[in-house]
Amino acid sequence: MDGIAVGVVGFGTVGSGVVSLLTRRADDFSRRLGLPVHLKRVADIDLARPRPVSLPPGMLTDRVADVLEDPDIQIVVELIGGTEAARELALAAIARGKHLVTANKALLALHGNEVFAAAAQAGVEVAFEGSVCGGIPIILTLRQGLAANRIEEILGILNGTCNYILSQMSLYDRPFAQALAEAQAEGFAEADPTLDISGEDTAHKLAILMALAYGARLDFDAISVEGISELDPLDLQFAREFGYVIKLLAIGRNDGERLEARVHPTLIPRDHMLANVLGAFNAVHLVGDAVGPLLLYGRGAGMLPTASAVVSDLLDLVLNLRHGVRRRVPPLGCEAALSTRRAVKPMDEVVTNYYFRFAALDRPGVLSQISGILGRHEISIGAVIQKGRQVKGAVPIVMITHEAREADVKAALKAIDALPVVSPPTVMYRIEDPHLHAAQI
Amino acid sequence: MDGIAVGVVGFGTVGSGVVSLLTRRADDFSRRLGLPVHLKRVADIDLARPRPVSLPPGMLTDRVADVLEDPDIQIVVELIGGTEAARELALAAIARGKHLVTANKALLALHGNEVFAAAAQAGVEVAFEGSVCGGIPIILTLRQGLAANRIEEILGILNGTCNYILSQMSLYDRPFAQALAEAQAEGFAEADPTLDISGEDTAHKLAILMALAYGARLDFDAISVEGISELDPLDLQFAREFGYVIKLLAIGRNDGERLEARVHPTLIPRDHMLANVLGAFNAVHLVGDAVGPLLLYGRGAGMLPTASAVVSDLLDLVLNLRHGVRRRVPPLGCEAALSTRRAVKPMDEVVTNYYFRFAALDRPGVLSQISGILGRHEISIGAVIQKGRQVKGAVPIVMITHEAREADVKAALKAIDALPVVSPPTVMYRIEDPHLHAAQI
Repeated sequence: MDGIAVGVVGFGTVGSGVVSLLTRRADDFSRRLGLPVHLKRVADIDLARPRPVSLPPGMLTDRVADVLEDPDIQIVVELIGGTEAARELALAAIARGKHLVTANKALLALHGNEVFAAAAQAGVEVAFEGSVCGGIPIILTLRQGLAANRIEEILGILNGTCNYILSQMSLYDRPFAQALAEAQAEGFAEADPTLDISGEDTAHKLAILMALAYGARLDFDAISVEGISELDPLDLQFAREFGYVIKLLAIGRNDGERLEARVHPTLIPRDHMLANVLGAFNAVHLVGDAVGPLLLYGRGAGMLPTASAVVSDLLDLVLNLRHGVRRRVPPLGCEAALSTRRAVKPMDEVVTNYYFRFAALDRPGVLSQISGILGRHEISIGAVIQKGRQVKGAVPIVMITHEAREADVKAALKAIDALPVVSPPTVMYRIEDPHLHAAQI
Repeated sequence: MDGIAVGVVGFGTVGSGVVSLLTRRADDFSRRLGLPVHLKRVADIDLARPRPVSLPPGMLTDRVADVLEDPDIQIVVELIGGTEAARELALAAIARGKHLVTANKALLALHGNEVFAAAAQAGVEVAFEGSVCGGIPIILTLRQGLAANRIEEILGILNGTCNYILSQMSLYDRPFAQALAEAQAEGFAEADPTLDISGEDTAHKLAILMALAYGARLDFDAISVEGISELDPLDLQFAREFGYVIKLLAIGRNDGERLEARVHPTLIPRDHMLANVLGAFNAVHLVGDAVGPLLLYGRGAGMLPTASAVVSDLLDLVLNLRHGVRRRVPPLGCEAALSTRRAVKPMDEVVTNYYFRFAALDRPGVLSQISGILGRHEISIGAVIQKGRQVKGAVPIVMITHEAREADVKAALKAIDALPVVSPPTVMYRIEDPHLHAAQI
């Protein structure tokens, strides 16, 4: 075998990183693999746009067919983003017997089961390390490194834009809109940041991590999602007084029978490893039944970090081709995953600790009315802060609860918000704090 | 194929963890692999010792030959520890065409090149995820996950005993001897802690990580090693005043031509991710040219965390056997590594920042004499703290230097320690602080 030919579709930021690595590190890769990897074609609809790397004449094409129909090309790298066109491309490559490398989390979250089923049918591989947390080898860790474990819990900071905004809000008491504008100015947020700040991008990634961790089909629709655009710096300050920071967390958990799958702003203790993940960095904190707690931390996006993951995937596929082995490790870790469904707990049945901020009119007996309603809904209070200062004509009462059921919390807050002495809506966030659990046992 | 038979040699703590996982998770592993893994024999010289798991009658033996001579057993798990007996066992298993899984860092640091060469000759695999940082998948990350990267730097907290002692000294101002006694009482240090506190165990692990990161033969003897037993809580306090914590770090670095390889107590900035690694936890902070900074954090030792790594290795080897592929990824990442040597910079040529604590007699002109000698040795001072309080009849003068050459530092300290106004020996530690580098550029 003289080498393996590769085609790249999508010559944007990550595509440029992949081309750059494949070009300048060709000798190192040959040495590692025992045979060369040839970048044969690069396809992009925009031929003219300036890019940080240049290609030899004739390599760049605006016809995807030049990649798909080339019989030499054994591996297609999909980097066009989006979902519909990417889905067509992925299925077309697979149908032609080509292996697929992608960094497209939206594609996998929405169409992953279809793509993986087609790949199983065709006997080809799909690799997607770049789809979650840039260059952090979290897919490899879940698919192979922790194979001996049952994963009990995943807590992830999976979106650099949100984490940058929250870090700015927390460190400099910025309002959300200003922190977003700064993130845009620094290149950490897109002109249209909806996909990031809504939590949807984080949920795409959580769907992928959970399929791997729990050996089951992707189930994006089962994930409950809340974004960060409503966050008030006031709550970051109160959280700090209780010893917490607020992060947009992806939470996956296995209670033995059902899974929890949710994305929302979350209070975590200041001394948790995830609390120190600042700026555009990403991190995943896992608990495995054997390995215990494990954290992976690094850059979650960017040209070279994501290209690092894409090219590592590519090199791994080349090793398989060289050794004549296919699907040694299937995309989701085991072949049975694609026919396995795991039930996800409805949000109403989730039991956790809560943070509430009530806007109370400054009259005697308000706290007693609020705590009375909470008590009738089986919600007990762990700590309270009541400040004299007024915010918009009301006094904030801030509480941390013991473990409570989400449905009870919703019902209690509805009743409290109907009180004449409370100015709705009450602010509610969930807390992830292992010490709070322990304290109640 | 009806399944793969495995033999375990060494039924101590980690051996019990491996037996436990292989027994209670057998169904999960079958599902993942598509075929069962059979634990066939367990060998240990001590048949009687009480253990947390029990074996079916006839499985335990005190004869290693019962494992080595069993033609069914395709994978031998070496968990006896030590070096000479482990080396003989490893070579004997390899000579019989059996694949080897080991968690023995001393074996690999001292005899790894020999073991790997024998395995290459015999065409068998050697897997050793459990040898460094317990269940943290750092070997997998370096061998496969970062294949697209040149590793620029490795900073590791690789020994839980030392990190536990340093955490206690730092958090509670304990003297070393008391922190060590506490670590022993808590089960975080052995009755004879020499291998840990001397830094030697950390150096064993660094040798393994560097061979993987730099694609070269193991070179344990080239690592410069200092332990933690001389550390004075006073220096942890002064370090704190400068914004640093002190950790026993393993440092591997590539300057493009030569490598740095050293283990010593090191000042790192309080806001560095490694500064938050407390107690018996381990962590590795890497910088790859594409991925940028990356941290992996978790439990570095213990029955189940280490068994997690050993069994994950085992499952990976079973996949290779099932798919009829051998040495798809060689032990050190590429076959060429074993014939590649990388030059290591002598300690005298290392350039870094330093922390000094001088014990000065309280007379005028002392600081000027000290700084004069430093200046004549090309060492410039970044910051100084001079306290009025006396320690053992002298006044501490504490300094942080700009970048200096180790040979110059040694010569300067020798000259300073000869001054009549200084009470030797001067305390010296090295600093890893990216901001200090940046500030000088």
